[in-house]
Amino acid sequence: MTVRSIKDKTLNQFLDELASKAATPGGGSAAAIMGSTSAALTSMVCNLTIGKPKYVGVEADMQALLQKSEALREQFTGMIKADVESFDRVMAAYGLPKATEAEKNKRAEAIQQALKVATTVPLGCARASAVAISLSREAAEKGNTNVISDAGVAVMAGYAALKSAALNVYINAGAIKDKAFAQAKLDELELILKDSDVETEEIYQHVKNQL
Amino acid sequence: MTVRSIKDKTLNQFLDELASKAATPGGGSAAAIMGSTSAALTSMVCNLTIGKPKYVGVEADMQALLQKSEALREQFTGMIKADVESFDRVMAAYGLPKATEAEKNKRAEAIQQALKVATTVPLGCARASAVAISLSREAAEKGNTNVISDAGVAVMAGYAALKSAALNVYINAGAIKDKAFAQAKLDELELILKDSDVETEEIYQHVKNQL
Repeated sequence: MTVRSIKDKTLNQFLDELASKAATPGGGSAAAIMGSTSAALTSMVCNLTIGKPKYVGVEADMQALLQKSEALREQFTGMIKADVESFDRVMAAYGLPKATEAEKNKRAEAIQQALKVATTVPLGCARASAVAISLSREAAEKGNTNVISDAGVAVMAGYAALKSAALNVYINAGAIKDKAFAQAKLDELELILKDSDVETEEIYQHVKNQL
Repeated sequence: MTVRSIKDKTLNQFLDELASKAATPGGGSAAAIMGSTSAALTSMVCNLTIGKPKYVGVEADMQALLQKSEALREQFTGMIKADVESFDRVMAAYGLPKATEAEKNKRAEAIQQALKVATTVPLGCARASAVAISLSREAAEKGNTNVISDAGVAVMAGYAALKSAALNVYINAGAIKDKAFAQAKLDELELILKDSDVETEEIYQHVKNQL
């Protein structure tokens, strides 16, 4: 599929292509879309809180949160495309000729470079997903309680995006020969993942208790 | 937004409308889309396993799994629309006139009927999400190991859909005056949710260990 146009596909077209035997779009794009869904739901809570007399006390906070969640949504949208491009780059590198020793070396180098990008892209998605989780917490704690369940869906979508992006970091980092690079990315991922289970559960329970 | 056309919106249009201050689409539609994403990724694993000589031993299983995941995806797609319709029906009932005693009674009855539908719809989404999780397990256990990370994303998307749909059951069941009806729905939900955390974690770890 044309990577440029994923966000302009209809939902049904996207899901058809996701289900198909084409290697892209795959789990990486799905993770970015779930992240985008999380940010959009936090924005929805903000938009349904701003301007309501009952919530005038948190009006400025909700305005600031909305700016953050909309910027984050834009970031995630870019990641849908970046994921497909980085995967295709790995596949293209594997497809390079390997008849001569020189070709073999060039191919091996291209694969390694592509794998580094394919590790960095989902790591960025994981980082953004952790931000999405923390934005959903603010929406859950300060937003209009009539739409607090949407903040609860935002946290679950952010969590699914985070755990999904992590899988794509693991798979690509594992094939990188520059062990220092790979380990640095895995260490950063562990920091991002740390406490995310607990935080997600806390936000979810906070929402559930308000229903 | 026109409920008939959600699946025909572009991803970007859908996310814009999700983020907007329109009450629909909201978390219920997002849950159904995450469920649909889960089913699509299980289908993808099947489609990238079927026909591969190395996986001829599971060919029939993958064919059967693909049929189930595609049928489930179709179910979820219908739920996006059902969620919006049931929400709008609740809102319409609250908007009924309440000047006279007769009007008040008619409105109260309409609200209660609408809430029952608005509880049953996400309960159906929760049930389908639990199926999505179990289908992702088969994809993770038998599918092409080259795309096993997509089965891992499928389980996370299914889990997020399940927990999200549950919030919409809680919120609507809580407002139903027919306590026997509400309790029966909540009991069914608890059965669906039971062990889903553990199952999701097991499938996720199985995938992670293969990467």
